Formats: sequence, C-alpha cells, structure tokens
Amino acid sequence: MRALQIIVCGISLAAASYSATAFDYFQPLPRQVPVPADNLITKAKIELGKQLFFDPRLSRDGTHSCNTCHNVLAGGEDGRSASLGANGQTTRRNAPTLWNIGFQTVLFWDGRSKSLEEQFTQHVLDAHITGYTNEAALLTRLRAIPGYVGAFRRVFKEEITLAGLAKAVAAFERTLVTPNSRFDRYMRGEKNALNAQELRGKEEFRTVECLACHFGVNFAGPAPGPALGMGDGFYELFPNHPGSEYDASHHLTDDLGVYEYDRDPAHKRLWRVPPLRNIALSAPYFHNGSAATLEEAVRIMAKVQLRKDLSEQQVADIVAFLKTLTGELPVITLPRLPVTEGFGVYE
Amino acid sequence: MRALQIIVCGISLAAASYSATAFDYFQPLPRQVPVPADNLITKAKIELGKQLFFDPRLSRDGTHSCNTCHNVLAGGEDGRSASLGANGQTTRRNAPTLWNIGFQTVLFWDGRSKSLEEQFTQHVLDAHITGYTNEAALLTRLRAIPGYVGAFRRVFKEEITLAGLAKAVAAFERTLVTPNSRFDRYMRGEKNALNAQELRGKEEFRTVECLACHFGVNFAGPAPGPALGMGDGFYELFPNHPGSEYDASHHLTDDLGVYEYDRDPAHKRLWRVPPLRNIALSAPYFHNGSAATLEEAVRIMAKVQLRKDLSEQQVADIVAFLKTLTGELPVITLPRLPVTEGFGVYE
Repeated sequence: MRALQIIVCGISLAAASYSATAFDYFQPLPRQVPVPADNLITKAKIELGKQLFFDPRLSRDGTHSCNTCHNVLAGGEDGRSASLGANGQTTRRNAPTLWNIGFQTVLFWDGRSKSLEEQFTQHVLDAHITGYTNEAALLTRLRAIPGYVGAFRRVFKEEITLAGLAKAVAAFERTLVTPNSRFDRYMRGEKNALNAQELRGKEEFRTVECLACHFGVNFAGPAPGPALGMGDGFYELFPNHPGSEYDASHHLTDDLGVYEYDRDPAHKRLWRVPPLRNIALSAPYFHNGSAATLEEAVRIMAKVQLRKDLSEQQVADIVAFLKTLTGELPVITLPRLPVTEGFGVYE
Repeated sequence: MRALQIIVCGISLAAASYSATAFDYFQPLPRQVPVPADNLITKAKIELGKQLFFDPRLSRDGTHSCNTCHNVLAGGEDGRSASLGANGQTTRRNAPTLWNIGFQTVLFWDGRSKSLEEQFTQHVLDAHITGYTNEAALLTRLRAIPGYVGAFRRVFKEEITLAGLAKAVAAFERTLVTPNSRFDRYMRGEKNALNAQELRGKEEFRTVECLACHFGVNFAGPAPGPALGMGDGFYELFPNHPGSEYDASHHLTDDLGVYEYDRDPAHKRLWRVPPLRNIALSAPYFHNGSAATLEEAVRIMAKVQLRKDLSEQQVADIVAFLKTLTGELPVITLPRLPVTEGFGVYE
C-alpha cells in the first residue's frame, strides 16, 4: 500500500500551511452538492439508490439496510456507541452521520475512502457489517430481484453491477442535505439567527482553536487534493496530547485509527476530522462513541487536543454554538422495495 | 389459563356452522378500518405511533424497530423464514404482514392476541424479540427522550405508559391499508379487473375449498366473538392430515401452534388462519417460512389440509388469483425520530 500523504491538523490558525484566502474558516452550506462527472444525478437514479439504501437485502441475513446504522429518520446514525452489524456482529466504531455527506470527501473514521461510491463498495463487502464476504454473493441475490434488474436496465442500461449499486446509492446520499441551520442563516446575513451566547460560542470555537481542525463546509477541514496542498487528506492526531486521564476513562488509545489498516507506525492515532453539522443529533461522540454528551466531548477535545481546561461557561457557550449547526432535515417518502420471489438467498 | 373456545375450520362449506347469510365468503376490503371506542384515531396519535413504529429504541440494543421485521417498505414483513430479534436472537416463526392488519382480530400465528393494542404490549416485552425483559426498562428509556414526553402529553394528556405506546402504534397500524387490489375492483363491479385465468383461479379457490378457511375481509376467516358464534377465534389444524411427506420436508409438525403456549393437548397443531391479502409480497410462506413460493404453498396446503392433489393448471390458476389480492401500498413519509441525549440506555 502506498504511503498516505497526510496533512495533520492541530496546528495554530496563524501557522496554517493552507491559505486563508482560499476558503473561509466558517462556511455556510453550499446550495449545490458537488456531483462527479461520471455519476450525474437523475431522478430515476436517486429513486433506485433510495430503494437500495433502505433495503435490508443488502445484508446477508436480511436484517440490516444502510439505514439501520445510518438512520436518516434521526441523526443519520444509530445512536449507539459502536454499531452492530448483520449476523449479530459487533463493530468497533461509531456510525458517522450521513447528513450532508455529499460535501464530505474523506470517508470512514480513518479516511480510507475518498468518494461516496468507493465508500459504498468497501462498506457493502465488509463481512463484519453486511455479512457479505464477496461481490458474487451480493450480486447473485440482487440479480434475482426482477424489480432491480429492470431498474438497472432503465438507469444504467446494463445489468446489476457493484459499480452501479455504488453510483445509485451515492446519488441518493447526495440528496441528504440539511439546509438553513441557524448558523447558515447567520452566515447568509440574518444577524439575529444566533443569540448572544451562541455568538460567544462561535468566537470561543475560534479562539480556543477548535476551528484549527473543524473548519470549512462540514467543519471537517478542507477536501484532499492538490488544489489546497492537502495531499490525501486532512487528519488529526487523537489524542494529540496523550497522557490525560481520558486515555483510560474513554479508551482513547485502544483504536489506533489509520494505523489499523495501513500498519504504518507513523499513522498511529491519526483520524480524519469528523464533520460537526447536526452534531446535536448524533450522540454519543468520538470514533468509539465514548462521550455521552456534547458537553463532555467539547471538554475532552479541548484537553486532549489543545491541552486546555475549559471553564463551564466556555463549554456551555461552545455547545450552544454547536447546536446552531442543526439544519432542516428533508421530507423523505418511503421507497417501495421490489419483491424477492422464493427464499431469496437468506440463510 | 382458561380454555379457549375454539372453532376449527377445514370443514366443508356446505356443513359450515356459521351462517352463509351473515357474510360473503369473498369480501372486498371495506373503506373504513374498525376503530375501538377507547382508542379513537387522531392525526397526532398516528404521527406519534409512526415515530414509535420506526424507532429502533423500542429494542433494547437499538437495532430493531417494529419495521425491521414488519417492513412496510415491502410486504409488511422481512422476507425471512423466521425473523431475527434484537441481540442477534433467532425466533421460530415467520413475521406476519402488517398490511390491512386493522381488519385482523386474531393476532400472532397462534392467535393469542385479539387486538392490535394487546398484540403490541405482548410483542414489545417479548425479550426474544426486543430484548426488553420488563416494562420499566422500556419506559425508562422512552421517558428520557424529551420529544416523546412532549408528544405523549399532547396526545394522551399523560406521561409515557405502556398502554399509551400500544394505542399510538395501533393507531398508526390501522392506517396500513392497501385498497384497490384487482380483486377488490372486481368485487366492486369492474368485471374486467380479473382475466380468465384469475377468474378460473377464484372459482378453484372455492371448489377446492381453500375458501373453507380463507374467507372474509382478510381471507382469514371470521372475527372471533359471540356475534357469529366464533368463540375465541377461528383456527385451523395444520397439517389437518398429518402423515404426508411434507411433515418432514417442511417441518410441519415441529411447532405445535396454540399448544406451545397453553399446553392444552387438544390444541396441538392449531393455528389461526393466516390472511392472504398481498400474499404475493410476503414469501416465504407458512408459520415457519418453509414454503418458498406461492405455487409450493398452494400445492402443500391442498395436500395436507384437504387431502387433494392439485394439477399444475389448478395451482397456476389459484396462484394467479392470489396475485390479484395485492393492493395499492400507501405513500408514507418517513417520521422524524426525537433525539436521545447522551447514551440513552444502550448497553
């Protein structure tokens, strides 16, 4: 595996290697989601992707759809510390929210995927999550569902493929946008959208230097790529300052992040910067879901990342600000899932 | 436990103990669902019930909502032979569909519940299904969700109770109606709604005597109660004629139905008559999901219930008729689930 070219955040804003003129640290949600040229969005593709997203047949035992762990009826995740996969399997990490995921280009907690399409492909064939150990088993099942065979022919002019599944689900995921948070309304000029405490929190968020990592559209740092000199992604060391009591109480060093998959000792404790939009909807927090509340998460982050002890007031103000990042969840109509005749391939 | 007063079907139509004038054997879906006087339907109650129905926090480990096994994105069930409960537990029986369940007054495969409210209460506290072993654990979790506390105050003028949960979910379930099947359109006078094969199948369904048990609104026999002399319910012996090869191949006598819960030897192999509306959407079939297709189910039922060997043509015709029982699934908007702060009570 080639070495990642990783940019580590946690640096002071003044010393940032990226150009402050290239983007604003605080950014409102854009009106348009970026769409890759090889996966243009159509209504039929979104509808197919929505069916697949909600279809539990995308897990081997028929119990888990994408929505099971990334629940768009709620915060876009499952409210658990770590998700439970199909076949009763336990996973190690907290399910990230899917809200506004179309603006996110560093996917998975370890950032190992750079597009929604790639992310889907890795995810659906992760036996620990879906129970599928190979592509053939998944495709055989779906190709036995006449409704999907017809939909793929209409949308992609071809039979069901893993690439097609990924494109359809990604197209649906790009619709999962939550506009008009109070923060966004403020950024667009509605100066009364935030109250005094929230504005104090916004300023604390900057001066405490939460913003050193959590900036940009999703508060998750810049997109990777050559344009901003971001290499393969923008990562944080977590904990940046190991040795606090939280390492033990919150198991912060049990899971070593990027290192766990690339085994590069230089990548121990490296994590992508998690997005903060709609963060009030997705307790508990951290890669292992060990922080129950936003207050706890903010206090610990300041300590282990920035070596700062926040006052109660600072914590309350920052949390008040973070709660303004909750947007309007779109109205979604339940898809109708095409019928499997017979047993399908359930075991 | 008091003895059930059970009426066993499988009798010939001519000798039926119920009055043929009291109801038609073939009945279209009524336009109105019966609503109990103590649980009148309001828009706010339906909305609350919909939230609860789709909320995985109604299982202990946060993985299973009602919809997980009774999937109203599809056939109102999960497509598995037997459902998987929370905590990775296996269950013995096939999840019945919820479509048109508001017309059904004999609930569970063994008919042990006579109302949707009672059914919910038994179900949500079945540790094998939801993981909850007692009412207090469920109520404690839900009472910690401010959105539900407020909704209960608005809908029921009281705090969250098990009875209130049951009423709200039952109110939502009564909206799960699928009108305008081709069968219903035919029954309402649209004589071209069924083609020649389907009409032959309808007639075979009567002459083969499938109709001896599968009649009435849901094709599940009459409602229990004194009005029709139906006692505590209308049941079938299954297999009615044990000894065929299917006992072994389809495990028809492993699960003894009503006997399994009341231990009355007279109730061995007794089952409620399962409804047939939308049956084409809910493969596999039987209480243990051992029949993969409708063709297989029809052939086996004729053999083990009526001691008849159907021809290929008869099977095809009856299946063609059964497929006309698929109605129009209503458009449902995803509910928004209220937030749990902190860990909730996930283990």
